[in-house]
Parts: sequence; C-alpha cells; structure tokens
Amino acid sequence: MAGSSIGTIFKISTWGESHGKALGVVVDGCPSGLELCEEDIQVFLDRRKPGQSKFTTKRSEGDKVEILSGVFEGKTTGTPISLIVRNESQISKDYSNIAQVYRPGHADFTFDAKYGFRDYRGGGRSSGRETIGRVCAGAIASKILKQMGIEILAYTKSIGDIEIETFAKEEINNNKLYMPDAKAADKASKYLEELMNNGNSSGGTVECVISGVPAGIGDPVFDKLDANLAKGIMSVGAVKAVEIGAGVDASKMTGVDSNDGFINEDGTIKKTRNNAGGILGGISDGSDIIIKASFKPTPSIYSKQSTVNKNGENIDIEIAGRHDPIIVPRAVVVVECMAAITILDAMFVNMSSKLDNIVDFYAE
Amino acid sequence: MAGSSIGTIFKISTWGESHGKALGVVVDGCPSGLELCEEDIQVFLDRRKPGQSKFTTKRSEGDKVEILSGVFEGKTTGTPISLIVRNESQISKDYSNIAQVYRPGHADFTFDAKYGFRDYRGGGRSSGRETIGRVCAGAIASKILKQMGIEILAYTKSIGDIEIETFAKEEINNNKLYMPDAKAADKASKYLEELMNNGNSSGGTVECVISGVPAGIGDPVFDKLDANLAKGIMSVGAVKAVEIGAGVDASKMTGVDSNDGFINEDGTIKKTRNNAGGILGGISDGSDIIIKASFKPTPSIYSKQSTVNKNGENIDIEIAGRHDPIIVPRAVVVVECMAAITILDAMFVNMSSKLDNIVDFYAE
Amino acid sequence: MAGSSIGTIFKISTWGESHGKALGVVVDGCPSGLELCEEDIQVFLDRRKPGQSKFTTKRSEGDKVEILSGVFEGKTTGTPISLIVRNESQISKDYSNIAQVYRPGHADFTFDAKYGFRDYRGGGRSSGRETIGRVCAGAIASKILKQMGIEILAYTKSIGDIEIETFAKEEINNNKLYMPDAKAADKASKYLEELMNNGNSSGGTVECVISGVPAGIGDPVFDKLDANLAKGIMSVGAVKAVEIGAGVDASKMTGVDSNDGFINEDGTIKKTRNNAGGILGGISDGSDIIIKASFKPTPSIYSKQSTVNKNGENIDIEIAGRHDPIIVPRAVVVVECMAAITILDAMFVNMSSKLDNIVDFYAE
Amino acid sequence: MAGSSIGTIFKISTWGESHGKALGVVVDGCPSGLELCEEDIQVFLDRRKPGQSKFTTKRSEGDKVEILSGVFEGKTTGTPISLIVRNESQISKDYSNIAQVYRPGHADFTFDAKYGFRDYRGGGRSSGRETIGRVCAGAIASKILKQMGIEILAYTKSIGDIEIETFAKEEINNNKLYMPDAKAADKASKYLEELMNNGNSSGGTVECVISGVPAGIGDPVFDKLDANLAKGIMSVGAVKAVEIGAGVDASKMTGVDSNDGFINEDGTIKKTRNNAGGILGGISDGSDIIIKASFKPTPSIYSKQSTVNKNGENIDIEIAGRHDPIIVPRAVVVVECMAAITILDAMFVNMSSKLDNIVDFYAE
Repeated sequence: MAGSSIGTIFKISTWGESHGKALGVVVDGCPSGLELCEEDIQVFLDRRKPGQSKFTTKRSEGDKVEILSGVFEGKTTGTPISLIVRNESQISKDYSNIAQVYRPGHADFTFDAKYGFRDYRGGGRSSGRETIGRVCAGAIASKILKQMGIEILAYTKSIGDIEIETFAKEEINNNKLYMPDAKAADKASKYLEELMNNGNSSGGTVECVISGVPAGIGDPVFDKLDANLAKGIMSVGAVKAVEIGAGVDASKMTGVDSNDGFINEDGTIKKTRNNAGGILGGISDGSDIIIKASFKPTPSIYSKQSTVNKNGENIDIEIAGRHDPIIVPRAVVVVECMAAITILDAMFVNMSSKLDNIVDFYAE
Repeated sequence: MAGSSIGTIFKISTWGESHGKALGVVVDGCPSGLELCEEDIQVFLDRRKPGQSKFTTKRSEGDKVEILSGVFEGKTTGTPISLIVRNESQISKDYSNIAQVYRPGHADFTFDAKYGFRDYRGGGRSSGRETIGRVCAGAIASKILKQMGIEILAYTKSIGDIEIETFAKEEINNNKLYMPDAKAADKASKYLEELMNNGNSSGGTVECVISGVPAGIGDPVFDKLDANLAKGIMSVGAVKAVEIGAGVDASKMTGVDSNDGFINEDGTIKKTRNNAGGILGGISDGSDIIIKASFKPTPSIYSKQSTVNKNGENIDIEIAGRHDPIIVPRAVVVVECMAAITILDAMFVNMSSKLDNIVDFYAE
Repeated sequence: MAGSSIGTIFKISTWGESHGKALGVVVDGCPSGLELCEEDIQVFLDRRKPGQSKFTTKRSEGDKVEILSGVFEGKTTGTPISLIVRNESQISKDYSNIAQVYRPGHADFTFDAKYGFRDYRGGGRSSGRETIGRVCAGAIASKILKQMGIEILAYTKSIGDIEIETFAKEEINNNKLYMPDAKAADKASKYLEELMNNGNSSGGTVECVISGVPAGIGDPVFDKLDANLAKGIMSVGAVKAVEIGAGVDASKMTGVDSNDGFINEDGTIKKTRNNAGGILGGISDGSDIIIKASFKPTPSIYSKQSTVNKNGENIDIEIAGRHDPIIVPRAVVVVECMAAITILDAMFVNMSSKLDNIVDFYAE
Repeated sequence: MAGSSIGTIFKISTWGESHGKALGVVVDGCPSGLELCEEDIQVFLDRRKPGQSKFTTKRSEGDKVEILSGVFEGKTTGTPISLIVRNESQISKDYSNIAQVYRPGHADFTFDAKYGFRDYRGGGRSSGRETIGRVCAGAIASKILKQMGIEILAYTKSIGDIEIETFAKEEINNNKLYMPDAKAADKASKYLEELMNNGNSSGGTVECVISGVPAGIGDPVFDKLDANLAKGIMSVGAVKAVEIGAGVDASKMTGVDSNDGFINEDGTIKKTRNNAGGILGGISDGSDIIIKASFKPTPSIYSKQSTVNKNGENIDIEIAGRHDPIIVPRAVVVVECMAAITILDAMFVNMSSKLDNIVDFYAE
C-alpha cells in the first residue's frame, strides 16, 4: 500500500501508530517564507488532545510537537517540514487483551485480512492518534490560507438526535463539545453522560465552513474541489457520510428550490443563497464552502458484544481501557485541517490555469 | 489543472466536451488477456443514453463507442485502451443564448472565473456527457471484476421524497427510473410529470451495492476504500452527498446499535449486520459494500430565474433546450462505473500488501 | 501497467499502436487562452514524418493530426486536449513473419514476458510511432514556452563516430540528418549509405539546448529538473544514455576545471562557463540547459541474425520491411518535445514555491 | 515544490537538512511480514558514513538510525516506516562564511533564486547528507529484493581518467575507493592525494549491476524501467550522466554490433551478449541490468575561485571546512539504493499486468 500521502503540490505523508515510539508527518510543498514555530502547530494539536473533559479519554500525554526540518531562522525554507510527536503514555498492557480478538466496529479484522497480522496496541495505525499528523499539516495549511484572507470554522453540529438550533460563534469554545449553541451543548452533555453510564457511545456530525476562497478553485472532472474534500474528510476514521451544501437534502428538493440565483450587488457577483455549498461544477463560486461530516459512534464500548477471536471462536467481549463516548468533539479540528489541506493544494494547482497569469508570473 | 485522471494502477483519463467533435477516455493499466469488444462497452453506454423515456432528453444520438487501441485479436494487450464516442447531434444554436449568461446551478460562472472564458455549448466540459468516458472505463473494470466474482448493482433509491419501500432486483430494469420497487416507480413517475408540467425538476438518490469483494482491499489512511469511493462518486456532476453503510444515520446511532458483530458460521467469519457498509478502517470486510449518492435536481429548468450575465447585469432567464427533469436514472450506471473503477484499482494496489504474496508471485 | 502518463500539472497520456486504428495523446493541464490550431501541431509532426529522405522509411502516410477537444473558437479552454492521428498505411502483411519471432534489439521478447502475448504488427506499442503522441503534446508545450521567451533547439550531434565540428544553426534544416555542420552531414550521409548497402544501421546522438529558462525552476530532491529530463528522454525508445552539461566528461574532470564561476555583468548574475548544463542542485541557474541523448542503432537490420522463436527454437532471421538505417534524425524533434513538456511542467509546479508570490497572485 | 517523494506503490519521502536537527525518510508501501531491525539499515548507512578514509570528510558523527513506526515485534506491519537519523555534529560556524556567497558548482545561487533565501548551513537540503533518507529506504528495498533472489552490486568504475581494467568482486571492499581492481584503486588513490595537495577534487563513475530480475518488469512508455532508473539516479546530487548497457558507446555502434541475439540454452531463453544492459523496450529481459552514473568532481575545493555574493559583488573565495576530494566512493551505496527502490517499485506495479495472474491471486 502507498496510501499515506495526499495532495498534488501541497503534499503530506503521515506515519505512526497509537503506541509506537512516535507519530508524525512530512509536509512537502510548503512555500518558502512562512513564519512558523512549534507553537503555531501546538495550538491546533491541543484542540484534539485527550484528557480535556469528562467526554474524552483520560490519557494525559502532552502531544508536544517538534519541528525537525524545513524551517530556518523562523521561516519555512520551501523544503519538506518534518514534524514529530513522541508517544509518552504507552500503557500497552491495557490493550494486550484485544490482541487475539476482532472488536466490532474496529479495523482489527480487516487489518489481519490485509496484512496477516497487526500492531494491536491501541488500534495501531487505525487509532484516532493517526490524525496527529493531519492536524500538524493542517495547522500549516491554515496559517497560509489566513494570509490570503481565508478562514475555516468547524464545530459540532449534532450529537445523536440533538442538533444545534442557534448559531453563536463565540459559544463554540465555551463548551467541551464545541457546539455553537449552549442549550444544545447542555442537552447533548446530559445525553452523553447517560450513555456513558450504560457503557454506550454516540455518533454525531461536524460542520465546516470555509470563507474567503476566491471563485475559480478546483478542477472540473475528477479533481473537483468537492470530490477532493470528500476524499480528505471521508478518510478521517469513523466518518460515514460527507455532504456539500444542501447535501442529502438536495435529493429531496426541486430545481426551483435548489438552484442558487446570481446577483450583482455593487459590482460584485454573489449568489442569492448557497445550496451549492460554495462549489459549482467542482469549482469554488466565491461563497462559503460548507461541508458536513457524519461520524459513527465510538466503536469501543463497555457493553458486552458478540464477536470472533483470531482462532475463529465465537466469543463475547467487554472492552476495557480508556475511550471517549463520542468521537466528534476531538474530530472537529481534524475536519478543519483536512479542509485546509485540500483547499490550499487546489489553490496551488490552480495557479497555472490561465495562460495570461503564467506569462505575467514569469515576466516579473 | 490536471484533474482529468483518476486511479493509481488502473488509471483513466477522460476528455471531451458536450458539443465538441467527440468525447472519450484513455484506460491505462488494464491487464492483458481480457476479451474485449465494443459491444461490451456499448451495453453500458446504452444505459446512460438519452432519449430512452419521457424523463430523459430527446437528443437521439447514437453514442457509438469505437476502440482505437489496446485490443488485438479480441484481447486487451496491457497497453492503453483508447475509446472514443463521436458527437453526432450538435445543435449548437440551442445553446447560443446561454453564452452570455450565468445559469443558476450550472458551472458557467465558475468556469469563467477559473479560465476566463468557456465552451458554452451544452455545458461544455461540465456537461453530463462528460460521464461517457467514465462509463466506457467502468464497463471494462466491471468485466474484470466479474471474473473475480464481484458484482455491482446500482439503482434509484429515491426521487424527491419518494423512496423505495421494497426491493425487487428484477424490477430495476422494468421501469424507466431504474427503481427496484414498481409502486415507488409509479409514484415517482407521476411526481416527475407534474414537475415537468411546471417547468421544474427533482433530485434523488442512487444506491450501489458491491458484492463479492474479498476482505482486505483498501488502505488504512488517505487511500481508504471508502475515501476513494467518496472522491470518485462526489466527482460525478450534481452529487452533493456520499454515504457509506448507515451513512448520515450513523451519526444518530449509539455504539450498541451501530457496531456490527462478527460471527463464525461454518468456518467463515461474517458480520451479523452491515452498518459499516462493508468497510472497516478503510479496508473491505468481506460483506457487501453499500454506497448512497445524493443528486441535486437538474439545474436546467424552464421556470424563470434571476441571474447575472457576463456584463454583470442582473437579468431573468428561462432556459430553453432539451433537458431531463431528473438526473438520477441516467446517473445510475455512472455511479456503478465509478465504484467499479475505484474497487478494481484498490485490488491492483493491494496485490503487494504482504511479503509472502509477493515472493510467491515471483517464484512461479 | 499505468505508465503511459507523465507530468504533475502539465500531464500527458499517450496511446496507440503502430498498426492499430490510430495513435494519440490527451494533454491535461494546458492553461486556457492559448491560441491553438492543428497546423501548430502539424509542423512538429511533419518533422518526425517518415518518407522524407533516403534514410527514412518509405512509408508515406500523412500523419494528419485532428484536435478533438479542449479548443474552442481557436483558443484552449483549460480542459483536456485530445489529439488523434489515424494510421493510414497499415500493410500488416509486412510484419506477419515476425509474429512468432523474437527480433534482436526489439521488445518482442520482453512484451511477451510481461503480457503473455503482443500486438506484433510493426512493433505495436513499442514502435517509433508511439512518439506521435509525445510530439503532439510537445508542440503545445513549445508554443507556451515561446510566449515566455524560451526556445528549444535540438539537432543531430553525431552519427556513429562522425561528430559535428562546427555549429551553424541555419544548417540544421539544410540537410536530411539535421546536423548543424554541412561537412559532417555529408560525411555521415556517405557512412549511412554504406551501412545500408550492407544491411546494417548506425547509432548517434542528439543534443538539445534550451535557452531562456529563468533561474529557479526544478525541485531539489527527486524532482530535480535534470532528473525529470533524464526520465523523459530516457523514455524515448532506443535512448541508452542521457547527459546534462559536461555529462560523462564531468567524471574525468577536476573541480578546478569543472566548477562554473559566477560573475556580475552589468547587474545580471551569470556564469563564466556552463559545465553544469544550466542546472545546479536540480534547479535551473538561468544559463542554457544542455542535454545529450545517445541512441542505439536501429535494431531492424537486413543482415542475418541468430535468435529464438516463440516455440523456443533457435533460428536465423533476416528482417524484411521498411526501416531507417538510423533513428536519430527523426528523433531530434522527439527529444525537443520531451524537453519542452518537462520544463513547462516544472515551471507550473514552481509557481507556488514562494509564499509572497502566492499571496500576490491571489491578491490580484 | 512537492518533489521529495518517489515511487508509485513502494513510495519514499525524504526530509532533512545537513545541519538541521535530523534527517529521515518515510517508506510507504513496504509489504507486511518483512523481518526488519535497525541493524539491517545501519549496515547500509555505514557504507556512506563520512570519516572512513583520508578521502572522506573528517566529520565523525554516528549517523545512527532509529525506526519510529511500521515495525511491530520485529516485522513490518505494512504501514509507513518512519526512519530518522539525528544530526550530532553540527559545527555551524564552519559554514557561516558561505551564507552570503554563491559557491561555484553548488546550489546556493539556484536555491536563492527559487526560494528567496536558504538554509546555508552545510548545503542545507542540497547537501550530500540528503542521501541518508535514500539509503535507509534502499536498505529495506534491497532486503525485499534479496528474498526474490535479486542482488545489486555497485562499485567505483573510474576516478578521473583511471578506469578499472580487471574485475574482482572481493576486492571492492578491500580498498577505500570501492574499486574492484586493486591496481586501479592504488593508482586512483595517488591521483586523489595529489589533487588534495593542490586543493582540487576529481569526478568519477559508479557502475551498478542488478542480477536476478525476471523478464517482464517495467512499462513500455514513460515508466520504462530504464527511464525510472535514469530519474532515480540522476536525482542523486552531482550526477551528470546516466547510461544503460552500452550507454554512450551505443551511439557509435552499428546494428550488427549492437543487437543482442537470443539463444535457447537447455530450455532457458538467454541473450548472447548484453549491450542492452538488461532492458529492451523499457522492460527487463532477464539478463543483468547494468547502469553507469557519472559524477562531477566535489564542487567544494580549497583553490581560490571567482564568484558573486548575495549583494551581487564580484569576489574571490576559498572554501574552508571539511570536504571529500571525490564524491564517488560514498555515492556507491546511494546508486545501489536508488536502483533497489526503483526496481522493487516496478515489480510491485507489474503484479497486475496479466489478467490471469490477477484472477489467480484473488482465487487463493
């Protein structure tokens, strides 16, 4: 397999297992001249760090990032940026009991089917910790996008059946669930506590809004901006659906209700609404890009489950160890980062779309 | 841009505009020794051909495929297969009125933003006719998959609010909407007629079930099988959501309800249900792979709409010309083909996953 | 196999066999706004056309190119350009005798080893006609490069032991061998005639000089500009060596003789000589890029040769049919085209190297 | 830029600067089940380590490799293998004087042209230390190839004008220059001493012979095995020419002398000689693959040279610091590693060339 890289020009390659020595990423194609220090990346990593609330695992490691290459005198040099996070808290004994068992909802069975055996410690490569590399790379992509006036905002939209009803941006970081609606967050919090008491878990959704992307980004056929976003976000563990704009609801609409009209307001061409989610024919239309990702519930639950072990025997298991009752809050930053990586790469690729632009570029 | 290719080993590159001379595809990485003739491909193309029912455009061209390379004495040679379909019915005057206008829901505005101008005839490269190349390539991929016992079945799952309630495989080809439920098809048919009479259109969903894929296909990180399927299917025009298995519903579930248990039945390890949609951790688990694609309504509607023209003037338009009130029935085969292409490529990439397999392969 | 494409942003995919229906190429990533017509490409194709002198095969087909997509109202649209050349003169009987035989110096044996069988007509995919697609794509790349002041000049540097001693640019198109030295051309011409009379053939070299490439193009590690040039040119059939600048001679030099000094002349930093061939550390240095390709002799010779047939029997063969006593003159344009394709792609990729440039680009 | 990765299935991404914190590589696509420990890699790294003879720099660091991921219980898991070598001996002051100067023969000027500034310490990313990642990855590729009976042997073929005249395999590791001819090594050794005394340096060549590659590896067009080898080896710093088989000499031959005949000896089809260097039409023919790389002299010399500084002033420089008078001996293992990486990747890609093989593979 060679599927640990993504991107055409801004290209990242992640590596590392949950309980190996370290995890990390190589970011190739970052332009020279970006001011970058470890703190820029750490603030993103801290958003996915465990141990922040009662709904996240008790694992208390630091997840401190170290820049190993590609930065000189505080600026990126244009060469690959290697980022590493050491695993500090490797309590392997917690996971020794799952070495011989195929946990329902996990990738134990499929890894064995593919590779013949697996690093069973804490999920190995299929652990949520694999996203550390994505977040490191996304922090860099986000910093570049910011310089072009592009902002990415992600938050928890729903947990189980509880969906946000109001939207208050400042509320997002006020609750441990990253919901922009305090009431919904409160309700969801109680729902999760109840599930935890029953050894159960919940699914939920993350919404991501990217504003400031100029019209014209993305390609018309396979590398549609929405297609690449769909790949990037579906590649995050536990995601089962990706929607752009009206998403699934678009299938229930009529053309009259669905089509976004255009209007010229004071010299700027805008759309009158945004069912398209900012992308038409695979190319950004200048309005907000809106993505929704649906996550399945945490597969690790304390409740008894029927499964099979490596010897093929039918057994019952109860999964001990530390695990969140919901993946979504810690995944918010991951979705944000995959969006940043994908959009930045599309913007780099787009630079050679028009002959005039190329000739101008090299005439300077 | 260079986004007209997809695949790592089984790689396809499509080309062509709606009203250009021709459309086609180059299929690179097809193994040698496959019996292949134009009829194998034509049967797939005929499924997406317009003019088959009152719900598809009246454009009556033949869409006859010609194999230009890569096949010798009835068998593929392992070299690129070039496939071409000539455009026969190019009534450009139908579209001359849209040259200066940004049609709502279409890619006119975004193409102009990206490229400075566009081939405005019939949607140019963003036309539904672009899928001809995909279907040609998918027909080849499907034929190879069949030799390994893999079958792909796609059908219309819903039109507007009307969803199938029963599933009868043999019914799919009995109605023009490719629905496996005669009653639902009938209801949907009436709904579409009503919309047509009002110059309106409808969205809908396609479901695709792939059976027979062995466990172990797909990679664990970015090239997850579901991530690549999401990209392939989201890259089909008008798709706004891709779901795997329980999809969006997974976000509302609890872990107890969501996790698929494993069971050993007579020596075969199976799952007790399939909320995962056949993929765990990005790798196939041996059960059916289940994908759902949501399509927005046909953006070309006869109703009057507000928009902007190339001069930036706010105008009203009514779109003449021939267009379907629903994209879904003709897109069924396209979804099926994108699934076939993606899965076949993943199977080729997977061949070098285990050292023992490689050593055995070259020892023969 | 999936090796019929090359390029990251300016990406080409060739297809077609010597005696199939047609040959062609899909050029993806050509920017919009380039004026392009069939004649632009035909002038390049005509330079590789057979039947032009006594040293090229008598095959007299037209090799007329047709643009099938990607050009609208005389300009490229930014979407894939599909180019096709129909095979007109397919005298398959000429080649029927080689179906069962492994010709020395040809790819008959290796194609059979790889694919189990082969299209034996005229070399099939390994024929020199495969370069038609490369030349079509190179014509487009060259036209774009020209707009940025970049010129590519290729010529025959040597035939057998006969090397040019003087350089007169205007002489190149004055002789059928494309040598910039009339005396050498005359000598080589006599040498070739003698070889032909003996049923023999000759090798030779092509030199290619690219002027006007700005400093800074190419990447420092695997995608070094010289590494990508080496791949592109070594991928031309019959090439056995690629040299950059001093090439093989550099291995015999000392550092004092080899290092090119820098000098500031009237505000421009230049080099005092060009042993580097215009590339330092994989990146263009602003001076001429100089490449030399060594071609082996035409493997098809009339002389009797010992070989093996498909049944594994040791036999003697004499190869009938039409073939050139030297590959080099017709390969001059192919080398030029591969250089153009490679350099243009590197220039596109380079556009996102500096953060300031990216921010400026999107600020406009 | 995104040019720090190479390979289609066996894909490596290198990172790191000469005087940064560390250098390393991520190896993606290594199959599961390979026994691998740090010592397997260290023996390769030690072959390129400086400080081994009077002809290599005095820098005495350990270059100890650490495996960070992808290996579990002594075996590769199929997930990315991250390898790191810490830089221990970073005497930055040695290089402070070159920060403002464009050293002749180095990439200082071109890095500044491309990126606006550079990590000037010890050559930064364009240092010979960049090859550490390549050697780590090559050690893994070589170990896999060995399991399939494929051996790679590289050695110094010439230094300046002194070329080996005899070939004794066991002699290669008997002299510091890795020459398989003790007399030539002795002569070259004296030549280098003389150059060192004069503050000068020498070029040279490396030959690499790969035996045991089955016929059928490589693709017929752009991904020809020789084209990919040419890229891989030309991408090694200081290489100015790559030759396959007869190489440059092929251009001086006639077809009668150049063509390798085939012969059936006891049921095995062999060639009667090997001017092709084991590759016909881009595909391996089963005989030894023979590559020659020409290296320019070490550009860092003590002799006074004319150049320009960052302010554009014409100056003279004498380069202090530690540097080898010849690159070739330490590059032998690098050439070997690039060959291993390229051939292994081609073997993985080749596995899906024939339909029968694929069907058999998945039938098991």
